[in-house]
Amino acid sequence: AAPLVGRLAIVGIGLIGSSIIHACKARGIAGTIVAIDRDPAVLERCAALGLGDERTGDLAGVAGADLVVLCIPVGAFAAVAEAMGPHLKPGAIVSDVGSVKGSIIAQTRPHLPAGTHLVPAHPVAGTEYSGPDAGFATLFQRRWCILTPPEGTEPAATALVEGFWQAMGANVEIMSAEHHDRVLAITSHVPHLIAYNIVGTAADLETVTESEVIKFSAGGFRDFTRIAASDPTMWRDIFLHNKEAVLEMLGRLNEDVAILSRAIRWGDGDTLFDLFTRTRAIRRGIISQGQDAAEADFGRRHAE
Amino acid sequence: AAPLVGRLAIVGIGLIGSSIIHACKARGIAGTIVAIDRDPAVLERCAALGLGDERTGDLAGVAGADLVVLCIPVGAFAAVAEAMGPHLKPGAIVSDVGSVKGSIIAQTRPHLPAGTHLVPAHPVAGTEYSGPDAGFATLFQRRWCILTPPEGTEPAATALVEGFWQAMGANVEIMSAEHHDRVLAITSHVPHLIAYNIVGTAADLETVTESEVIKFSAGGFRDFTRIAASDPTMWRDIFLHNKEAVLEMLGRLNEDVAILSRAIRWGDGDTLFDLFTRTRAIRRGIISQGQDAAEADFGRRHAE
Ligand SMILES: NC(=O)c1ccc[n+]([C@@H]2O[C@H](COP(=O)([O-])OP(=O)(O)OC[C@H]3O[C@@H](n4cnc5c(N)ncnc54)[C@H](OP(=O)(O)O)[C@@H]3O)[C@@H](O)[C@H]2O)c1
Ligand SMILES: NC(=O)c1ccc[n+]([C@@H]2O[C@H](COP(=O)([O-])OP(=O)(O)OC[C@H]3O[C@@H](n4cnc5c(N)ncnc54)[C@H](OP(=O)(O)O)[C@@H]3O)[C@@H](O)[C@H]2O)c1
Repeated sequence: AAPLVGRLAIVGIGLIGSSIIHACKARGIAGTIVAIDRDPAVLERCAALGLGDERTGDLAGVAGADLVVLCIPVGAFAAVAEAMGPHLKPGAIVSDVGSVKGSIIAQTRPHLPAGTHLVPAHPVAGTEYSGPDAGFATLFQRRWCILTPPEGTEPAATALVEGFWQAMGANVEIMSAEHHDRVLAITSHVPHLIAYNIVGTAADLETVTESEVIKFSAGGFRDFTRIAASDPTMWRDIFLHNKEAVLEMLGRLNEDVAILSRAIRWGDGDTLFDLFTRTRAIRRGIISQGQDAAEADFGRRHAE
Repeated sequence: AAPLVGRLAIVGIGLIGSSIIHACKARGIAGTIVAIDRDPAVLERCAALGLGDERTGDLAGVAGADLVVLCIPVGAFAAVAEAMGPHLKPGAIVSDVGSVKGSIIAQTRPHLPAGTHLVPAHPVAGTEYSGPDAGFATLFQRRWCILTPPEGTEPAATALVEGFWQAMGANVEIMSAEHHDRVLAITSHVPHLIAYNIVGTAADLETVTESEVIKFSAGGFRDFTRIAASDPTMWRDIFLHNKEAVLEMLGRLNEDVAILSRAIRWGDGDTLFDLFTRTRAIRRGIISQGQDAAEADFGRRHAE
C-alpha cells in the first residue's frame, strides 16, 4: 500500500520533531521525509542519527510536501510561516505540535497561500528533554493528540492529520483552539508554572540552604524539579502565548489556596481532609484510563 | 554478633512501620520485634505477612522494649504517648517517624517517665500508599533520615537511633526540630498542599470537564495527582501541626506567583526565561546527588 503521506516535511528537529520522524519511519507512514532545521549542528546530528531522507537548513525545503509539521516553539510561528508560505505547493496541509493553539492559528494563517490547509495539532506527550537526541518512536503511543481545525477547514485535510497521528499510535480528539487552550492551561501550563515557581522560591530562601533542599527533596519536591527542568524557551513562549487562560486558572488557584491557608490557620482539619479525599478519586481516574502507572513512586524503588 | 536492638516495638503498622519491620528482619537489626496496632484487622494482615515476632493491640506491649518507634499520624502522638508512657522500661528509647518534629516533641515529652529517652526521627522516604501491605525493606535505602534530639538528650541514645537508621541503609543528618520543620515545609509539605490544591481546583472548573482533565493529564498534571493521592489523615495532621512554617512558605510562594503573573500579563519573557533556567540547576543537583533518576519521564515510556 502507498504510504499515508507521500512527502512529509518536519520543521524543527527537537524532541517532538525527531520523535515524529522515528515513528513515521518505524511504521512506514511517509514516502519521503524532509528534515528541516536552521541549525547546521542539529542537521549533522540528524545525519548521524539517520533522521530524515533529505535534510536542509532552508525553509524552501517544504516545496512539494503534502504535509508540513512545524515542531518549533510557540513564539516562532509567525516568522517561520512567513518564510515558508511562498514555497508551499497547492493543496499542502500545514500542521504543527505547538502546546498553545489559538496563538498559533493567529500567527500562521495570514501567511498561508490560498489552496493550502491549516490543521493545528498538539500531541499531549513529552519529556523534560530537548533536541534531536531526545526523540523516540513510541512517545505518542496511547497518548492523546488534540486537533483544533479552525471553522471552515476542509474535512479531508482534518481527516488526513487525524490518520497521521493515529498511525503513530495516538488517540485523536478534536476541539476548538479556545477550549484546548483552557484545558491545557489547567492540565499542563499552570502545573508547570507552579513547579517552576516553587523550585525558584526554594532556591531563594534564607533559612533553608539549597543543599538542604536538594538532599531532602524525596518528600515531594523532586517531582516538581523534574517538571521545572523543562526547556525554558518552550515554556516562556507557552506562557506568553496562552496568557488569558493561564492567568484565569492562576486566579482560581489563588482563591483556593487562600481557603486552604485559612483552614490551616484556624485548625479546620475537616476542610483539609475533605479536599484530600476528593483528589484521590481523580488519581484513580487517571490510572484506570491508562494515563499513568499505579506503581508506587514510579518504580523509583526498583531503580535503587 | 548481638543485634543492635534487643527488643524493638513498632507502634502503627502502616507503610512506614511495616517497612521498618521488613528492613530490620532482612538485616537482623533486632532480636525480637513487637508489632503493635490498635486495629485487629491490621494485626491479622501482619500475621499473614509475617510482620513481627509478637503482635498485640495493646500499648502495654511496649513493656521491656529497648527501642520503641511510633509510626502513627502526627496528630495521634499525645494520646499514644500518654497511654504508653507508664509501660516503658527504665532506659527505653522512644523514637518515631513523624513528618513534623516540633509538635511531636511537645506532644510526647510530657508523658515519658524520667530515665527514658526521646530521639525523634523522620525518614525522608515514602510512597503515596498506606497500610501494612505497602511496606518494603528497601524503602529507606540511600534516603535521608533526619534526627532532631531535643537539647540535653543523652548522646548514647541519639547514637543508638542513628545506628538503627544507618543499619537500614539510610543516611542520617541531625538538626533542630524547628529547622527540620522549615526544611520539610518547603521540600515536602507545601509541594503536597499545592498538588492537592491544583487537583482540587481542576475538579471544580466549569469550563473544563473532569474527564478532560483526566484524559489530558500527561502534560504535567498527572505528577500532581500522584502526590495528591497521599493519605488524607496523615496530611491533614501534617498541615495542622506544622502550621507556622507552612503558612510562612506559602506566603513566600504567593509573592513569587504574583511576580510571575505580572511577567505573563506584561509579556516580560526575560523574567520567565531567567527563572526557568535557574530551576534547571536545582534539578541537576538532585540527580547528581542520587535523589532521583535522570531517565526521561521516569521510565513511563518503557512501561507502555
Ligand atoms: N517537550 C514537550 O514535552 C512537548 C510536548 C508537546 C508539544 N510540545 C511543543 O512542541 C514544540 C517543539 O518542542 P520540543 O520539545 O520538540 O522542543 P526542542 O526539542 O527544543 O526543539 C525545538 C526545535 O525548534 C527549533 N526552533 C527553535 N526556535 C526556532 C525559530 N525561531 N525558528 C525556527 N526553528 C526554531 C529548534 O531549532 P534549533 O535547534 O535551531 O534551535 C529545534 O529544532 C513546541 O511548540 C512545544 O510547545 C512540546
Ligand atoms: N507515607 C509517607 O510517605 C511518610 C514518609 C515519612 C514519614 N511519614 C510519617 O510516618 C507516620 C506513619 O505514616 P504511614 O505512611 O506509615 O501511615 P499509614 O500507612 O496510614 O499507617 C498509619 C498507622 O498509624 C496508626 N494510627 C492511626 N491513627 C492512630 C491513632 N489515633 N492511634 C494509634 N494508631 C493510629 C494506623 O493504625 P490503624 O490501622 O489502626 O488506623 C496505622 O497503623 C506519619 O506520622 C507520617 O507523617 C510518612
